[in-house]
Amino acid sequence: MKRGRFIAFEGGEGAGKSTQAKLLANALREQGLEVIQTREPGGTAGAEAIREMLLHPPGGGWQARAEALLFAAARADHVEQVIRPALEVGTWVVCDRFLDSSRAYQGGGGGLPDEDILTLHRIGSGGLLPDLTYLIEVLPEEVAARLDRRDRGMADAIGGRDASFHDDVGAAFARIADAESGRFARIDGNGTLEETHRQVMQALSPLLDRSR
Amino acid sequence: MKRGRFIAFEGGEGAGKSTQAKLLANALREQGLEVIQTREPGGTAGAEAIREMLLHPPGGGWQARAEALLFAAARADHVEQVIRPALEVGTWVVCDRFLDSSRAYQGGGGGLPDEDILTLHRIGSGGLLPDLTYLIEVLPEEVAARLDRRDRGMADAIGGRDASFHDDVGAAFARIADAESGRFARIDGNGTLEETHRQVMQALSPLLDRSR
Repeated sequence: MKRGRFIAFEGGEGAGKSTQAKLLANALREQGLEVIQTREPGGTAGAEAIREMLLHPPGGGWQARAEALLFAAARADHVEQVIRPALEVGTWVVCDRFLDSSRAYQGGGGGLPDEDILTLHRIGSGGLLPDLTYLIEVLPEEVAARLDRRDRGMADAIGGRDASFHDDVGAAFARIADAESGRFARIDGNGTLEETHRQVMQALSPLLDRSR
Repeated sequence: MKRGRFIAFEGGEGAGKSTQAKLLANALREQGLEVIQTREPGGTAGAEAIREMLLHPPGGGWQARAEALLFAAARADHVEQVIRPALEVGTWVVCDRFLDSSRAYQGGGGGLPDEDILTLHRIGSGGLLPDLTYLIEVLPEEVAARLDRRDRGMADAIGGRDASFHDDVGAAFARIADAESGRFARIDGNGTLEETHRQVMQALSPLLDRSR
C-alpha cells in the first residue's frame, strides 16, 4: 500500500490555518483520498490534556524549556498514536501546526536553540517531518483586524503574548521556510479564503502528481 | 552565601524513600540548616498537574517517549522554580526521586536510550545533578510484603506494572549507581526505619563536613 502524505499548516495567530486545513482536507476527499484532519497540540486524549495545560497553565505560567518539553510530549503521543498509523495505511494527514510551530514559538519567540527543539523532536517522534508544510503569511495589521473580530476572551497563555513576541515568531517561521524550502510552500494569506485556498491547491499539485 | 546542597532519594516502589527523605530533612533542620523537602514528579503547581497526568493517563496510557518528555517537563519546572532558587540562597533540598528515576524507569524499564534521557535533562534543566544520591535497595520479597500492606487501590499507571518491569528498573538503578559512584550512596533498606536512617546519616557526613 502506498504511504499517505503528511501536510502541515503553519503561521501565526489569525493566519487562517485551521480554515485552510479544513478546505484542503475536503478538497482531497473529493479526489477520493482518505484524509484525517488533526491539530497540535492535541489530536489524542493525552495530547489534548497537555494542550489544556499549555493554554491554561496550572501555576504561574511555563518557562520556555518546560513548554518545549510539553509540546514535544504532546507531539510524540500524536505521532505515535495517530499520524504514523494513518500514513502507514495510506491515509493523508492534514495537521494544523506541527514541529515548526515549536521552532518558531519556543525557539524564535522563547529563545531556545533551534537545535534543542530538533533534538526533542528526534527523541520524541523519530524526527518525522511533513511532506509539505504551508506557511501562511499575513500582514500584522490584517492579523490585528482579524483577532479584534474574534472573542478576546479566547486569548490564551500563548496567543495572548505581546507584539514583539509575535514579530519574533513570524521572523523565525520565515527563516525556517527559507532554510528548508524543499518542503515549504509560502502562501500569501492576506486575501479572501478562496484566494488563499487557490494558492494552497496550486502548491499541492506536485505532491498529488507524485502520489498517483 | 554558601550554596545549599541537593540530595535525592532513589529506588523502586516500597523502598522507603519518602520516609527516609523526611527523617533526613528533620535531622538536617535539627543541625540548624534551612531545608526544603520535595518530590518528583511534582514540587510545583505545574509539575503536580503533570504528575497527575502521568499516574492517571487521560488516554490509553503513555508510551515511553511521551512519558520521558513529560517527566522532563515536570523536572524543568521544578528545577527552575524551586530547586535552583533554593540552592542559590543556601537552602538544602531533599528530593524524593529525581533524574535517575527517569533513567531507571523510562530507560531501564521502558527501553529508551540512557543518552536520550540525559539529553532531555540537559535541555530541560541544564543537566543539574544532586550532590548526593541515595539508592535505597530492598529485596523483592520484602518490597512485595510492604506493598501488600499498602492500599492496593493506590496502584497507579507506573507502580502497577509487572514484576519484570520492576526487575529491569532495579538493575538499571544499580548500573547507574556503579557507573557514577562518586555521587551515590547505596543503602541497604531491608531493615527497620531506624537502621536505614542510621546508614543515611553515616553516608551524609562527608557532605556535612565539606559544607561547614
